[in-house]
Amino acid sequence: MILVNGDYREHIEISDRGFQYGDGLFETIAVSNGHPVFLDQHLARLKAGCRRLYLPFPGAELLTLEAQKLSGSSEKAVLKLILTRGSGGRGYRQPDTIQTTRVLSLHPYPDYPDSYKEQGINARFCDIRLGLNPALAGIKHLNRLEQILARAEWADPAIQEGIMLDMNAQVIEGTMTNLFYVKNNTLYTASLTLAGVAGIIRGIILALCASHNLVVIEHSYTKDELLLADEVFVCNSVIGIWPVKQIAATYFPVGAKTRQLQTLLTEFQS
Amino acid sequence: MILVNGDYREHIEISDRGFQYGDGLFETIAVSNGHPVFLDQHLARLKAGCRRLYLPFPGAELLTLEAQKLSGSSEKAVLKLILTRGSGGRGYRQPDTIQTTRVLSLHPYPDYPDSYKEQGINARFCDIRLGLNPALAGIKHLNRLEQILARAEWADPAIQEGIMLDMNAQVIEGTMTNLFYVKNNTLYTASLTLAGVAGIIRGIILALCASHNLVVIEHSYTKDELLLADEVFVCNSVIGIWPVKQIAATYFPVGAKTRQLQTLLTEFQS
Repeated sequence: MILVNGDYREHIEISDRGFQYGDGLFETIAVSNGHPVFLDQHLARLKAGCRRLYLPFPGAELLTLEAQKLSGSSEKAVLKLILTRGSGGRGYRQPDTIQTTRVLSLHPYPDYPDSYKEQGINARFCDIRLGLNPALAGIKHLNRLEQILARAEWADPAIQEGIMLDMNAQVIEGTMTNLFYVKNNTLYTASLTLAGVAGIIRGIILALCASHNLVVIEHSYTKDELLLADEVFVCNSVIGIWPVKQIAATYFPVGAKTRQLQTLLTEFQS
Repeated sequence: MILVNGDYREHIEISDRGFQYGDGLFETIAVSNGHPVFLDQHLARLKAGCRRLYLPFPGAELLTLEAQKLSGSSEKAVLKLILTRGSGGRGYRQPDTIQTTRVLSLHPYPDYPDSYKEQGINARFCDIRLGLNPALAGIKHLNRLEQILARAEWADPAIQEGIMLDMNAQVIEGTMTNLFYVKNNTLYTASLTLAGVAGIIRGIILALCASHNLVVIEHSYTKDELLLADEVFVCNSVIGIWPVKQIAATYFPVGAKTRQLQTLLTEFQS
């Protein structure tokens, strides 16, 4: 089921700048019991992304209406929202009047086994690095070749996520997740000023830490620092929080902080 | 007129990874007297891009046939060829069997005045920087938000091109062109190992220099070095070579090397 600018369609114009240049943004939203989860946060991020890419934001009311229309009959699903600069303009130059294209589509919820959430996952380090660009850092935009090349590095089904470093060899995130680690009871995650996507669950975790007196530090850190962690976990809107039990040859326990945040996130959602 | 996998169509599936992630490549080809200009070079670059992105190349014969089919009746036009990873896969992960989508579309030739080629153009420096990524450098891929943000920086019609620096403050290229400069009879252009698009005309100019005993150096250079140049020009497949007569407050003459290369390029094309 796909809604394009409010109409049920399966196709998009070839001239759409989303297709021509990746000129747009997207959100991947979990649907639970007929409701898009954390929809307000997703729409707030989309709006912030629009400001950074000079895209007119279609309005939270309209997008909420359409999101609910698609999600209403699904117990568990994934809702994807794509917003592009539409058609027009001359080459890279955007049109004088931008008519965005909004695409909402509903997808089956991935069949991840419960063990990922409970016992944790295996991760690897990816070879391809994330480029540095403050103008695009943090935004969930449609230019995702780095993630695609990273995900193409392994086919082993025993490995669930790849960890990406930036060009300065600093750990940034997973291919589809943000990454946190715990060391001596303090939480750490990458600062996303030069690369990376500022995930919704990452933002909620930062807020939950603040409201529950958990110390969390956004900073720049290396592979070696990560491998010395007491606990590691990844997060995104579809999976919630998955402990990481192994990165390459290093093993991690599923620790108390990870469990605490899983619980806090579940409580916050309901 | 648009050919999608050989059929006349105006739309593409929303699930296409070109639309979802910018997962693909493109070529912009001049059409002159019914023929796609430098088609072999464009297809060779496309093939090289396919290797770097793990995309199956559809074959030069098929693409040549389709390119000629679209171009046949046009005296002067622009042919755009987009090749994507098609639909399928799971998130960033590519499908096990990749069925590429190829889109060839014909567009009117832009109405650039002759003065651009003859007397030169005005350029400015863009604020947004090109991110560094050797895995994507040189490839003409569909992730073009940096160029779009750069082109959105100015609306003054008296300025025809914006010059982009990378995150290390090295000059790389124009938003839609490659850049050369001349100093003491030597030609210089940016090396594209960390950022930039390896343009077809850039490649032909390098080859023409080699065959005509013109010294050309690919290197890393700053804004200040560029502003001390004797001549500056930009190039791409649609415009050929345009002298640059002004960058910000600095003026340049249209020099002998620029004229020589314009002539060599015209001769090479015919």
